[in-house]
Amino acid sequence: MKPVNPNMEATFPPPVMEARRWVECKDFPASRPLMNLSQAAPVDPPPEGLMQAMADAVLSDPSVHLYGSVLGHDALRAELAAQWSASYGGVIEPSQVAITSGCNQAFTSVMSTIAQAGDEVIVPLPFYFNHQMWLDMQGVRAAYITTGDDLLPDPERAASLITPRTKAIVLVSPNNPAGVEYPPALLAAFRDLARARDLVLIVDETYRDFHSSEGAPHALFEDPDWDDTFIHLYSFSKAYRLTGHRVGAIMASPARLAEVEKFLDTVAICPPQIGQVGALWGMQNLRDWLAGERLEILARRDAVRQSFARLPEWELLGSGAYFAYVRHPFDMPSDEVAKRLVDAAHLLVLPGTMFGPTRAQGGAGQAEATLRVAFANADRAGLDELANRLAPITSL
Amino acid sequence: MKPVNPNMEATFPPPVMEARRWVECKDFPASRPLMNLSQAAPVDPPPEGLMQAMADAVLSDPSVHLYGSVLGHDALRAELAAQWSASYGGVIEPSQVAITSGCNQAFTSVMSTIAQAGDEVIVPLPFYFNHQMWLDMQGVRAAYITTGDDLLPDPERAASLITPRTKAIVLVSPNNPAGVEYPPALLAAFRDLARARDLVLIVDETYRDFHSSEGAPHALFEDPDWDDTFIHLYSFSKAYRLTGHRVGAIMASPARLAEVEKFLDTVAICPPQIGQVGALWGMQNLRDWLAGERLEILARRDAVRQSFARLPEWELLGSGAYFAYVRHPFDMPSDEVAKRLVDAAHLLVLPGTMFGPTRAQGGAGQAEATLRVAFANADRAGLDELANRLAPITSL
Repeated sequence: MKPVNPNMEATFPPPVMEARRWVECKDFPASRPLMNLSQAAPVDPPPEGLMQAMADAVLSDPSVHLYGSVLGHDALRAELAAQWSASYGGVIEPSQVAITSGCNQAFTSVMSTIAQAGDEVIVPLPFYFNHQMWLDMQGVRAAYITTGDDLLPDPERAASLITPRTKAIVLVSPNNPAGVEYPPALLAAFRDLARARDLVLIVDETYRDFHSSEGAPHALFEDPDWDDTFIHLYSFSKAYRLTGHRVGAIMASPARLAEVEKFLDTVAICPPQIGQVGALWGMQNLRDWLAGERLEILARRDAVRQSFARLPEWELLGSGAYFAYVRHPFDMPSDEVAKRLVDAAHLLVLPGTMFGPTRAQGGAGQAEATLRVAFANADRAGLDELANRLAPITSL
Repeated sequence: MKPVNPNMEATFPPPVMEARRWVECKDFPASRPLMNLSQAAPVDPPPEGLMQAMADAVLSDPSVHLYGSVLGHDALRAELAAQWSASYGGVIEPSQVAITSGCNQAFTSVMSTIAQAGDEVIVPLPFYFNHQMWLDMQGVRAAYITTGDDLLPDPERAASLITPRTKAIVLVSPNNPAGVEYPPALLAAFRDLARARDLVLIVDETYRDFHSSEGAPHALFEDPDWDDTFIHLYSFSKAYRLTGHRVGAIMASPARLAEVEKFLDTVAICPPQIGQVGALWGMQNLRDWLAGERLEILARRDAVRQSFARLPEWELLGSGAYFAYVRHPFDMPSDEVAKRLVDAAHLLVLPGTMFGPTRAQGGAGQAEATLRVAFANADRAGLDELANRLAPITSL
């Protein structure tokens, strides 16, 4: 193929699509169907009322068929600003909120306003693969904060990675893929580091609605000057089961959002209208329902913990929000393990090699040793079954 | 604002959003309402059957609430491949088709696979602003093919712009903003040039459904090796009035689409599901309806030609598909003209300065002299009224 951007060639293919190919054309018996714990995607449809609200809008609100504002519906921006101000105990204005076509787009649009080819961005390991892919294809270098078995990044280690080309630190909490929740003090330490060194701190809080603590997961918004350093990213996909409708959000300074608007206009023109209708209806009507969803996910977290407690050869390193991050007991790299588990356990999970550099790429072995289990996609009985399927496998 | 990507700062804000601000907070009397010819956006809702199909899917097809494939629904890719093969008289396989969240995303994803910062891309003047914005924010240099009053780019002039960093030529036909249709021989000449020099030829055919010729608008797909050079872009937004649902398409080689898939996964994950449902339903059920829409747009083109024929001080340079491109008679730059026409004529159109370099930026004066009129948004009576409003204005 002639002209090809080498930065694009250098990055890897979409992991979830690759994993789908491992199970394509395979038959799994009804008695032991495929357990697909590869992608964080609620499998049940949204609540009836939300679907009805979207269908009603399609039939009776002509504006949903037309382009909307690049930065999203005013009503949705205002609702987010109000609810976030209340839940985080800070002041967030509607002008500090933008709606995007999903949280990946939130990240790519924000990062585009920050870093160009040759710049550097600090990212903990394991990374969220689409963050890494965007940095790769933009020619931006990711500098990795290595983590130990607690999977928590150390701000001092991050400080040692800062160079004159460093522009930002990117965190995900609750973490994808590691399943850990970053403590408020840790997030504050990263904010202080970023502010002191004139960097941006991006925190992707896609899984905030399933955090194990009842209150605000951090105090960053309490700072009246939060928007000089902090950028918050959010997704409606998990809370309201809207993955197919593509709605996410950014909270940042109005000046930053004016730059984001250029990117979004060029890449998307506007977020999908029906998704925005669903997101707003969800925020206004599903608070109690979402509280129940959170309790269910927390129960599943307990179930996955119990499952791995029954598997002495396996080690559960992190578990929270949607994900468990586990060390497998096999003497082979995780990508091979994940592929073989499809046949051996009728189980699809993603290997650590999709979330960090392999040894050949300079990694320290964490990628080969680990697997990500999107446990929230299985119910409690399914998570019990997960242990039953893994327990007998002593070699692959 | 601290760290900011200078490439992002260097590009301009979204033109349509800027134009919206010119009319914000202004009152227009019911007797002479604002005539908004700024954006190519069908104002009527889609046909009843299409809306019903989307509403039905929301209520009864659980898969529309879930992530889909990155490159779009198989059924929609297959339908496009079949209908395009028939209408262009070539062979287009489903594996050569990808679905995107609108045609802007089709362009940005394709261009990402081709050019990196420091590369060059050849673009005729006037340009489509979102193409220019993407090149700006990626640090890719646009080399301009200047055009005369026929607004048609000359392949020989393009050849003279090629350097070792040149990667692609980007054309839009029927053209946005110029309203001209590029003849098949001109498109073939550009394809031959691109092939001879190992460049990609991208042709954005967003407005193909409203082309004035009945048959295929070009023969590029008849070439069995078309996908070694040619990339076709399409939008469902105009044909089926789906602007708010974000659906477009790419036709390119499978190898190119494998690279495109990385970008789309990272920026969008998948195209919005409801938009894809609408697009497929439209392709399968609205062929006759769309044929009627085309005739209506062609009638509006005749109406806008008649209107400007009544305005001897104005010069109609191009008119086709959705747009007329006109030379205004005022002794001031087009951005000033466009702003003043809001009050003087209750008319919103976009200035040529949004579609090409100003004199200060090295332009030859075309940008200052011209306006784009999205005439397809007005009916025939409205286009007659357009001339009535402009005729009495001898100075601004």
